[in-house]
Amino acid sequence: MTINESLSCAAVSTKANVYFDGKCVSHGLTLADGTKKSVGVILPATLTFNTGAPEIMEGTAGRCEYLLAGSTQWVASGAGEQFSVPGNSSFQIRVEGEPYSYICHFG
Amino acid sequence: MTINESLSCAAVSTKANVYFDGKCVSHGLTLADGTKKSVGVILPATLTFNTGAPEIMEGTAGRCEYLLAGSTQWVASGAGEQFSVPGNSSFQIRVEGEPYSYICHFG
Repeated sequence: MTINESLSCAAVSTKANVYFDGKCVSHGLTLADGTKKSVGVILPATLTFNTGAPEIMEGTAGRCEYLLAGSTQWVASGAGEQFSVPGNSSFQIRVEGEPYSYICHFG
Repeated sequence: MTINESLSCAAVSTKANVYFDGKCVSHGLTLADGTKKSVGVILPATLTFNTGAPEIMEGTAGRCEYLLAGSTQWVASGAGEQFSVPGNSSFQIRVEGEPYSYICHFG
């Protein structure tokens, strides 16, 4: 279980993406090969996100529990762990206590 | 007045810095030449920050008002504008409505 404390990038979008009144904040990144990712954080809350492209959420600090659409099983995930969300779907994420920092990989 | 919507970077810290219960969230950046900056956002609130190194705050979205230590004059600053804060000092920043996104330049 490796925690990626740093991520190589070529450019960062300077306007923050603010969701749910700030319970989730992210910044978009472009890597040297053109790949798009984002880094963000979820504060204590239970939130529902919709996906367009499939996503891989990689925890870098804190921990969360997530519930994929169609599942009844909340699953814990923390720093150094990741989980996949299908495209055109949704998931709930629940954070308690320490904020959950993540890298979001698309596609 | 140019709004820098994107900033070149070499690496981003994946753990978000969360201040004041999430009223301010930032991510640290390292540029190709080793320079450290951060990108962040301030949600509607009035906050007081202390500086170590001098800082230049550059707005990239939204707007704020700031009050430097020792001043009695709140000054407005928005996207494409910047203001300087001395080192080992403090400033208050007030945001209403839309979040204020910024680049923080140190030193």
